[in-house]
Amino acid sequence: MSQVPVLEKVGPQHLELRHPRGRTRITVGCGAFAEALPALAEWVAGRRLFVLSTGGVRELHGAALAPLCSAAASTVDLEVPEGEAAKAIGQAERLWREMAAAGGKRDSRLVAFGGGSVGDLGGFVSGCFLRGIEFSQLPTTLLAQADASIGGKTAVDLPEAKNFVGLFHHPRFVVSDARWLASLPLEELRSGLVETIKMGVLGDRELFDRIEATIDRLLAGDPEALAPVVVAAARGKIEIVEADPEEGGRRRLLNLGHTLGHALEAAAAYSDLRHGEAVAYGLLFVLRLAVRRGLPVAEAERVRALVLRLGLPPLPFLGIQALFELMSRDKKAIEAGLRWVLPRQIGEADEAVAIPLPEIEEELRRFLAGPLGPVQESAGGRAGPDL
Amino acid sequence: MSQVPVLEKVGPQHLELRHPRGRTRITVGCGAFAEALPALAEWVAGRRLFVLSTGGVRELHGAALAPLCSAAASTVDLEVPEGEAAKAIGQAERLWREMAAAGGKRDSRLVAFGGGSVGDLGGFVSGCFLRGIEFSQLPTTLLAQADASIGGKTAVDLPEAKNFVGLFHHPRFVVSDARWLASLPLEELRSGLVETIKMGVLGDRELFDRIEATIDRLLAGDPEALAPVVVAAARGKIEIVEADPEEGGRRRLLNLGHTLGHALEAAAAYSDLRHGEAVAYGLLFVLRLAVRRGLPVAEAERVRALVLRLGLPPLPFLGIQALFELMSRDKKAIEAGLRWVLPRQIGEADEAVAIPLPEIEEELRRFLAGPLGPVQESAGGRAGPDL
Repeated sequence: MSQVPVLEKVGPQHLELRHPRGRTRITVGCGAFAEALPALAEWVAGRRLFVLSTGGVRELHGAALAPLCSAAASTVDLEVPEGEAAKAIGQAERLWREMAAAGGKRDSRLVAFGGGSVGDLGGFVSGCFLRGIEFSQLPTTLLAQADASIGGKTAVDLPEAKNFVGLFHHPRFVVSDARWLASLPLEELRSGLVETIKMGVLGDRELFDRIEATIDRLLAGDPEALAPVVVAAARGKIEIVEADPEEGGRRRLLNLGHTLGHALEAAAAYSDLRHGEAVAYGLLFVLRLAVRRGLPVAEAERVRALVLRLGLPPLPFLGIQALFELMSRDKKAIEAGLRWVLPRQIGEADEAVAIPLPEIEEELRRFLAGPLGPVQESAGGRAGPDL
Repeated sequence: MSQVPVLEKVGPQHLELRHPRGRTRITVGCGAFAEALPALAEWVAGRRLFVLSTGGVRELHGAALAPLCSAAASTVDLEVPEGEAAKAIGQAERLWREMAAAGGKRDSRLVAFGGGSVGDLGGFVSGCFLRGIEFSQLPTTLLAQADASIGGKTAVDLPEAKNFVGLFHHPRFVVSDARWLASLPLEELRSGLVETIKMGVLGDRELFDRIEATIDRLLAGDPEALAPVVVAAARGKIEIVEADPEEGGRRRLLNLGHTLGHALEAAAAYSDLRHGEAVAYGLLFVLRLAVRRGLPVAEAERVRALVLRLGLPPLPFLGIQALFELMSRDKKAIEAGLRWVLPRQIGEADEAVAIPLPEIEEELRRFLAGPLGPVQESAGGRAGPDL
């Protein structure tokens, strides 16, 4: 048998996330929406349903929602801009006013139908409307299906910093239909694959192997290949979130690649770089720190090779000082200083490693000069970890 | 012994509220702040402290906070307008940006130092900053000490409707120093007393007796008289909130007088009528409904007499149709229609009584024609309950 299990076509998988206030029913795979429809229909029956989505998502997949909408007492469409632009307090305020004007009540429902931004905003808006109405996630991007839709994090951005405003508000259902992924543009698939690679590196070597073995089909948006990757990533995320619902400890693992990633994203003003692309660079950077602390170079190079297969857009020029400031403003920062999630090997990582700032600065300077290059300057120049 | 226990001067009382995510330590009475200071100081030690308050409160009581501020690593003042104007999404957004710019982190702390609006806004702002930082309530008005600071409700308003946006976010500490109440203007005391009368009517006959017996001292802002009333109201609220942390059932009791009260407040555009004054009128109205369902007229008249002692400002002219629309938009409304909390006798109330709309309309029409008058038109005209 190969190390990578060859997955035959399987139907949608049912997963469950238990959290402090209840549980989320998660259905993942090809045909997940049809599979979950009876339960979703019951959930909206006799109630006002708000469908938060973008024009693009509605055009591509809106028809799929018709049976859900007809199960509700009435449906109100809430339209938001594509991408990060949706995640603004002004957008949330507009939506709350529309919901109030449409007669939204405590027992009304909301579904967030779209990518990560739609889910983040939809969770925030439902979490704060009348002190919280129930909502569900119907994620249509790989990033959202594999990661963002699970775990109850909701957020909008401030001009100063991403995701600074939000709350924990778990969806009642997450329905991730892999068929919705077939229409994704390459850069969306790439961005989502970064989070699945991250999940593999931090805790699931088998998932990493699978991504490595099927990367071409994954980048082509093949739903049959994507489904098991999403299932595995979702399982990994559920396990971590259940162990640490509100990010006291273990959940910080999910931050692998995000410390620098968020700063890169903010420095590039949320537009030049997608979230996943920024995290990919963040991951490449972290490999360098990790190698200095014991991650075998061969493992690091294997991760780097897989990340390079994604074909990242070039990193824009970014000043080291600005990145430092952004990192120390990162919401995971604590008064004690920056902490880093570092892989020990593929499939295992440490939660919070403190690294002296001068070392970060030195490594970051080297990294920015050639971010896609080998994790060690050596193989020639340097002798190896110098700690 | 009298029915009303004559309370000798007692020191601050320690109460505790257990909620699904932890507990709130509540210190109430004359000298409560000095009593709670060691615990508060420990809570802020080594951290950034945001002090959210108004110019007026700072001027009157700001000096009291000096020992707390000096216990924190650093203090950042957040200034908000007086009254309901503070409870706007635009205000929250400005504060979040100030907090981000000041380097606020997950382990930063916030205290809301002021009346109910400051507490509602402070709870919302801290609850959504970085998905929630710890905060404490230092309420300086009777309304906030006796009611609003306890129970984790936070909110801001929409132009369309009051308290439509918010979340449950319990304070870590509530410190209600009765000495802060001595400087309150009469209308503030009046507004707060309404909530304590409400608390007596819905579940604590002894509290009602006490308010009745000491009303002159209470209206004069005598801290020694106010302290036991605040303690009793706080105890009552804690009991109800613990039984029903997120308003599924029993907590609806607290809505006594608020169904019409909120509509009156909104119709008067949040300015002509204070919250407590609007609730007072709401309570007077509910007495009429309750008498038709078995509340003894003598009990109702006793409540009305006490409410009249407060010297309410006149009710502005308000259209019955507008009030109906506002009531059905109240966030406690559910698809099934309006429900009313009705007293059965002083000290006992029913949670959710459905009343046919024509009956409400008839009674409301009669009420608006003479809101301060007897609960029954009779004693002359009508024969009594006509159900």
